[in-house]
Amino acid sequence: VPNDLNDIDAAVIARLRGVSTATLTTILYGKGLKNVFMRGVRPIAPGKPNMVGPAYTLRMIPAREDIDNLFERDSRTDLQRITTETVPPGAVLVVDSRGDTGAASGGALLARRMAYRGVAGIVTDGGFRDSPEIGRLAMPAFQVAPSAPPVLVRHHPEDVQIPIGCGGVSVRPGDIIVGDDEGIVVIPKHLAEEVAEAAVRKEDIECFIASEITGGRSVMGLYPPDAAALGEYEAWVAAGRPTQQPTKGQQ
Amino acid sequence: VPNDLNDIDAAVIARLRGVSTATLTTILYGKGLKNVFMRGVRPIAPGKPNMVGPAYTLRMIPAREDIDNLFERDSRTDLQRITTETVPPGAVLVVDSRGDTGAASGGALLARRMAYRGVAGIVTDGGFRDSPEIGRLAMPAFQVAPSAPPVLVRHHPEDVQIPIGCGGVSVRPGDIIVGDDEGIVVIPKHLAEEVAEAAVRKEDIECFIASEITGGRSVMGLYPPDAAALGEYEAWVAAGRPTQQPTKGQQ
Amino acid sequence: VPNDLNDIDAAVIARLRGVSTATLTTILYGKGLKNVFMRGVRPIAPGKPNMVGPAYTLRMIPAREDIDNLFERDSRTDLQRITTETVPPGAVLVVDSRGDTGAASGGALLARRMAYRGVAGIVTDGGFRDSPEIGRLAMPAFQVAPSAPPVLVRHHPEDVQIPIGCGGVSVRPGDIIVGDDEGIVVIPKHLAEEVAEAAVRKEDIECFIASEITGGRSVMGLYPPDAAALGEYEAWVAAGRPTQQPTKGQQ
Amino acid sequence: VPNDLNDIDAAVIARLRGVSTATLTTILYGKGLKNVFMRGVRPIAPGKPNMVGPAYTLRMIPAREDIDNLFERDSRTDLQRITTETVPPGAVLVVDSRGDTGAASGGALLARRMAYRGVAGIVTDGGFRDSPEIGRLAMPAFQVAPSAPPVLVRHHPEDVQIPIGCGGVSVRPGDIIVGDDEGIVVIPKHLAEEVAEAAVRKEDIECFIASEITGGRSVMGLYPPDAAALGEYEAWVAAGRPTQQPTKGQQ
Amino acid sequence: VPNDLNDIDAAVIARLRGVSTATLTTILYGKGLKNVFMRGVRPIAPGKPNMVGPAYTLRMIPAREDIDNLFERDSRTDLQRITTETVPPGAVLVVDSRGDTGAASGGALLARRMAYRGVAGIVTDGGFRDSPEIGRLAMPAFQVAPSAPPVLVRHHPEDVQIPIGCGGVSVRPGDIIVGDDEGIVVIPKHLAEEVAEAAVRKEDIECFIASEITGGRSVMGLYPPDAAALGEYEAWVAAGRPTQQPTKGQQ
Amino acid sequence: VPNDLNDIDAAVIARLRGVSTATLTTILYGKGLKNVFMRGVRPIAPGKPNMVGPAYTLRMIPAREDIDNLFERDSRTDLQRITTETVPPGAVLVVDSRGDTGAASGGALLARRMAYRGVAGIVTDGGFRDSPEIGRLAMPAFQVAPSAPPVLVRHHPEDVQIPIGCGGVSVRPGDIIVGDDEGIVVIPKHLAEEVAEAAVRKEDIECFIASEITGGRSVMGLYPPDAAALGEYEAWVAAGRPTQQPTKGQQ
Repeated sequence: VPNDLNDIDAAVIARLRGVSTATLTTILYGKGLKNVFMRGVRPIAPGKPNMVGPAYTLRMIPAREDIDNLFERDSRTDLQRITTETVPPGAVLVVDSRGDTGAASGGALLARRMAYRGVAGIVTDGGFRDSPEIGRLAMPAFQVAPSAPPVLVRHHPEDVQIPIGCGGVSVRPGDIIVGDDEGIVVIPKHLAEEVAEAAVRKEDIECFIASEITGGRSVMGLYPPDAAALGEYEAWVAAGRPTQQPTKGQQ
Repeated sequence: VPNDLNDIDAAVIARLRGVSTATLTTILYGKGLKNVFMRGVRPIAPGKPNMVGPAYTLRMIPAREDIDNLFERDSRTDLQRITTETVPPGAVLVVDSRGDTGAASGGALLARRMAYRGVAGIVTDGGFRDSPEIGRLAMPAFQVAPSAPPVLVRHHPEDVQIPIGCGGVSVRPGDIIVGDDEGIVVIPKHLAEEVAEAAVRKEDIECFIASEITGGRSVMGLYPPDAAALGEYEAWVAAGRPTQQPTKGQQ
Repeated sequence: VPNDLNDIDAAVIARLRGVSTATLTTILYGKGLKNVFMRGVRPIAPGKPNMVGPAYTLRMIPAREDIDNLFERDSRTDLQRITTETVPPGAVLVVDSRGDTGAASGGALLARRMAYRGVAGIVTDGGFRDSPEIGRLAMPAFQVAPSAPPVLVRHHPEDVQIPIGCGGVSVRPGDIIVGDDEGIVVIPKHLAEEVAEAAVRKEDIECFIASEITGGRSVMGLYPPDAAALGEYEAWVAAGRPTQQPTKGQQ
Repeated sequence: VPNDLNDIDAAVIARLRGVSTATLTTILYGKGLKNVFMRGVRPIAPGKPNMVGPAYTLRMIPAREDIDNLFERDSRTDLQRITTETVPPGAVLVVDSRGDTGAASGGALLARRMAYRGVAGIVTDGGFRDSPEIGRLAMPAFQVAPSAPPVLVRHHPEDVQIPIGCGGVSVRPGDIIVGDDEGIVVIPKHLAEEVAEAAVRKEDIECFIASEITGGRSVMGLYPPDAAALGEYEAWVAAGRPTQQPTKGQQ
Repeated sequence: VPNDLNDIDAAVIARLRGVSTATLTTILYGKGLKNVFMRGVRPIAPGKPNMVGPAYTLRMIPAREDIDNLFERDSRTDLQRITTETVPPGAVLVVDSRGDTGAASGGALLARRMAYRGVAGIVTDGGFRDSPEIGRLAMPAFQVAPSAPPVLVRHHPEDVQIPIGCGGVSVRPGDIIVGDDEGIVVIPKHLAEEVAEAAVRKEDIECFIASEITGGRSVMGLYPPDAAALGEYEAWVAAGRPTQQPTKGQQ
Repeated sequence: VPNDLNDIDAAVIARLRGVSTATLTTILYGKGLKNVFMRGVRPIAPGKPNMVGPAYTLRMIPAREDIDNLFERDSRTDLQRITTETVPPGAVLVVDSRGDTGAASGGALLARRMAYRGVAGIVTDGGFRDSPEIGRLAMPAFQVAPSAPPVLVRHHPEDVQIPIGCGGVSVRPGDIIVGDDEGIVVIPKHLAEEVAEAAVRKEDIECFIASEITGGRSVMGLYPPDAAALGEYEAWVAAGRPTQQPTKGQQ
C-alpha cells in the first residue's frame, strides 16, 4: 500500500481549498475531461470548509452470507479496520459501494478514528450509518443517503488502493479529491497542479465579474469576458480588487 | 418574445404569495387539473418567501459535441445569456432540462444578474451549479439536485418562450408559477385569478380549523367543514379571527 | 381495531428512545433480521428526539376516479379521518403508500390533530403535503419526499391495522417503530424487550470505545472489543464512566 | 372468500376477448378513468389469446426472516397454496407484489395446478420463477421480469380477495382483468358490460378505418370519423364489411 | 415545414442500410461524438431491415386536462394527424416523448397511414399503443415499452420540425436516423456522407477479421488490425473476399 | 492468473446443465444464501442449453478521456483482448460493468473468438454491442440491455480474476455460474458439488409432482411433498418414472 501523499505539493492542496467544484469541472472540461463530478454524492453536513486530498481507495463487493458475518469479525484482520488505521493523514478515503445504499459503507466509530488520525475526509457512493454523529465531526463526509444497517448486510470490503469507480467517476489512488457543498470532483493526479492554478485565476476573474454584476452591469461582453473586460479585470487586480465580494464557498 | 407580465394583476400575485402550493393543488384539483405539481423540484435554500410570477420558459436539448463548446461561446449570441438579459422583471425563469442533472442548467453569475434585474425566481428540473452561492441570493431558486459540471456537458439552450414540460408538468409562457418550501405548482394563466381567490378563502377556513384543532376539537364535522362548522367559521371571521395561529408558510 | 399499546412496557419504550436506529439494526442483524430499515424514509425536520411507539397501520391503494372525489368526502366516514381520531396516543401511524410520492399521504390538519391526541409520530413511504408546517410540530413525521397534491389524486385509504409493507419493510400492527435522524427501523413486537436491552448495552460499550478513540487509541482490539477491551469497559463502568462523551442521537 | 364469477355475463367476457387493451383504455378514458393500465406488466409468452376474467386478488407484504422459512412451510396452511386451490375457474389471479422482482411471486408447479383448474390467467407486478416453463402453459401469465429466487426471500402472502394495487392500478376483487400482448387493463366491475359493448363497436369502426387507410385514404375526416365517415362506416357494415382486414389482436 | 429529403444522397442512405448501429457509433466516436445512441429505445418487432432516413421531429409536452380532451379532437386540426399526413416519404418520424411511457405516443391507425405514405420508420422514447399490430407492419417502429393508454392521458403534440431530445440524444430535423435490432443512432446531417463511407469500409474489414477468427486466428494483431493485417485484408479484397461470412445485420 | 478449471468435476458441471436457476436458488436459500441471482441480467437469445462454468472475472471501471482512446488501442496490450485470449475453455467470462449500459462491455468479434476457444459463455451487468450477431453464436451471452457505443465511451478494463460484483451478486473467480432463460445464478465454488446433487434430486421430485398435477391432483400434501407423497415419489422412481413430463428447461 503506497503512500501517495509524499509527492503532493502543499501549495496545490491549499489552492484547491479555495475554489469550488463548479470551477474545477469547468477547468477539467477545458482539458477534455467531462466525467469528473460524482453523481448523487453530497455532504452529510454542509457548511464545512472544502475537503481536499489525494484519494485512498476501498472497494466493496456484494456481501455473501457464508463469508460475511458481523459477530465473528476480528478487528485485527478486518480490511475495513486495517484501512481505518492505514489511510494516510491528509488523504481522502473513497469507498466504491456500487451505489448501494441498502447497508452502511461505514460508521461513526471508524470515522472518529480517521478524524483523529488526520484523514482529510471520507466519501462513499453508498451511505454511512450513524450519519448524524459523523456530521458533527470536523472531518467532512460525503454520501448518497444515510443507511443504518450494518456494513455486512450488503458490502464486503475486498481491496484497498486499486482504481475504482465511485458515483460513476473513475478514481485512481492519488487522484486529488475536492468536495464542497455541491459535491465531489476527481482531478487526475497529473493534472492537479495546472488545474489548481487555472481554477484560482478563473475564480478571481469571476469575482470581478460578480462585483460588476452586483453593480448593475449586463453579462454581455462580461461573462465570459471579452478582451476589453479582461483588461478591466487586470486593472481591477492592479487596483487591489476594490469591489471584491464573497462568492462560491466564501461565506 | 412577448412580455406576459403586462396583463398580470398585481393583486393576484399578492394573493398567491400568501398561500401554499398544497392549497393551490387542491383548488386546481377541484377544476379537474391533477398534474400541476412538479416532481422532485425543491428549493435550493428553504425558508424564503413564496416565489410567484408568470413563467418565462427556456428549453434545453441534449448537447452535441460539434455544436456545444464552452470556450468558443460568445456572450452576445449565447441564448442562455440573452435569456438572462431579457427575462422580464417579476417573471419566473423555468428551464426544461429533461430531468437531467448530469450537468448544470445555469450558475451563480447568471442568477446574480437575474436577481439584480428583478426576476422573481428560477426553476429547473435539472440542477444548478454554484448552488450554495445561488442559495444565498434573495431570489429563490428551485432544482432537482445540485450539479457542478458546466451546462454544455449535457445541455444546449435551444428555445425561449415556447410551451415546455418541467418536472413532468406542462408550462406555457405566462402560466403563473408558485413555489414554496414544498415545491412548485403551475397555474394556467386563465385560471390564475379565480384560483388565487379560492385559495385565499380556503386557507382562511383552514386557519380557523387549525385553531379549533389546537383547542382540542375532533376533525369529525370540522374538516372538511360541514354546514355548521362553516357557520362557526363565518362567526369567527366576523369576530376578527380571535384564535388565529400561524399555518402554512407563515412562521 | 385492537389497541396494541396496553401490553407495551413503558421501560422498553424509554430504552429505545435512547438508542440509534443504527444500533438497533445491528442487534436485529444478530437475530437474523436483515430487512428492518425502511428505504428512503427520512424525517421532515431532523433534530427532534427519537420517535418510538407501536405501529398503527393504514394501507393506501391506488385511487380510482369514480370512487375518489375530494369534494364529496364526508369527514365522518372517510377512513383517513377515522384513523386520525382512533390511532392510540403513544402509537406511530405507519402509512403504506406503495412508495408513491405523486400525491400526499396526508397533511398538516390531520397531523395537528394527531399531535394533539398524543400520537407518537407519523410515517409514510410516500410524502406529506404541508410538510413545512408538519415539520414545525413537536410530533415527528417521516416521509420520502414532500408532495403537495391532495391525497385522492393517487391514494385511496383502504384498510387500518393490517400488516403492510412500508419502505420495503414488513410492518405488523404493534411492531415497535423507532425513528431518528437516519430513518426508521421496525422491531418485531416479540423481540422488542430483548432488543432494547441489548441495544442499550451495545451503545454503552460504544460510548466507552468512542472515548478511547477520542483519546487516540487504535480500533485494533477495541472495536469490536476483544476480551481485554471488554474488561476495560467493565472497569470504566465501575469507575462511573469518567470519560463519557456525546454519541449517537445525543447532541 | 366470495366467488365473484357467478354474476359475470359470459357474453361480456366473450366480447372482451375480441378487443384490445388499447381500445379498452380509450373507452375507460371516455368515462373519466385514466389510470387503468398496469405499468411494466407484460406477457411471459406473447401470442396467446386475450386473457379475460374477474380479478381474484392475493396481497404479498415484505418477508420477515423469523416468519418466512421455506423449509418449514406446510402445503396445507400456506396461503399461496390455499389460494392456488381456491381461485375460481375463469378468474384471473392478480398478485400485489409491490413491484418487487427481487424474488418470485410464484412458480411453475402452482401455475400448472391453476391452469388445470381452469384459472383464466395469472398476473403479478413482480416476477415469476420457472417463467420459461410457465410460458409454455396455455394459461397466460403476466409479470414485470422473471425472478428465480424463492418467494419467501422477499414476499409473504398475507391476504386474499381484498382490494390491492398492482402495477400502479387499483384492483378490487371482481374487477374485470383483460390482458393482451401489450399488457393489462383493469375494468371496474360495474362498468364491464357497457365498456365491452362500446369497445366492440369502436374496434369495428377502426376496422373500417384501417381498411380505408390501407386503400390509400388520408386520416383527415376519417380518424376519428366525422359524420360523413360514420355514414360510410354504416354503409360498409350494411354491405357485409367487404374490405375487412385483420387488426389489433387478430393475426 | 421544410422537406429535408431533397438534399439527401440516395447512395448515402443505401450505404447506411448495410451497416450496424454499433459500427456507426464507433465512426462517430472517432469524430468526437459520444452521445449518439438513444437510451432504451428498441424495435417493436426485431428482424426487419435497417431503418434509415432523415429525422422529421414531433415534440410532445405534458398534457393538461383543460386543453387535451380526446373526444373533442378534430382530425383536421390535430397536430399529430397533420404530422401523419405531412412527414415526407423516406423520412423517419422521431417523437420526443420525454421518456414517458405512461401513455401512448401514437397508435396503429396513424402508423398504418404513414407506412402507406412511404415513411421510413417511427421512433419514440415513450411507447406506442396497438404495438403488436404496429409490429406487423413492414415499416419499422422503435419505442421504450408498449403503452396502451390514449396519447392525451400524458402527451400534447406541440411542435413539428424543431430540434428535440429523444432517448437522451440531440435530434435536429434532417439528421440521419439509423435503426437496427440493437437500437437507434443519430448522425448529424453534415457528417452523414463521410460516416457512411467510413462505416462501410470498417464493416468490410471486420468481415475479414471475422472470417479469420472463424478460422481460428487470435485477435492479437488482428483486431484492431495492425499494418500487416491490413495488408492481408487488402489482399483478401483483391481475391474477391473468398471467406466472407455473414456478420452484423446479415442473417 | 490462475486456471480454476482444473479442479472442477465434470460430473458437477453436467448435473448443473440439467437443472434450472430457480431450483438452484432454492437449494442455495436452504444453505442460507439469499443473494445469488443477478438482477436484470438476461440471455441475448433465449432457447439455448444451460450455460455452466467457473467464473473468469473482468472488472471495468469508468472510462477517463485522457486514458481511454479507442483509436490508439493496441490489440497486444489491451486488457480486454488479453482476457479474450486467456479466459480458459469451459469458463464463463463475467464482466463487472457497474450496471452501466451506456456503452458496450464487449462486441461480436471478441465474442466470436471466445466462442472459437471453447469459452462456455459471457455475462455482463451492462450490455454488449453487435448483440444480434452475438445472439446467433452457439455460445450463450447474458446482458441487461444491448448497447451499441464502443466500450471506451464508458468502460475501462482494469482487472482480471479478482472478486467482483455483477448484477448485485458477489462473484469470485472459480465460482460456478449457471445461466438459463430466466437469468444467472452464482454458486460458491465450495458448495457446487452438494448443490448440484441436491438440485438434481429436487427437480426429479418436482418432475413427479408436475406429473401428478397434470393428472389433476391438488397441491395439498403434494408440494412440498409430505412423507406420504415422498413415498409415492420413491415408488414412482422405482417404477421407472412412468408419467415423466417435460419441465424446467426441457422443451
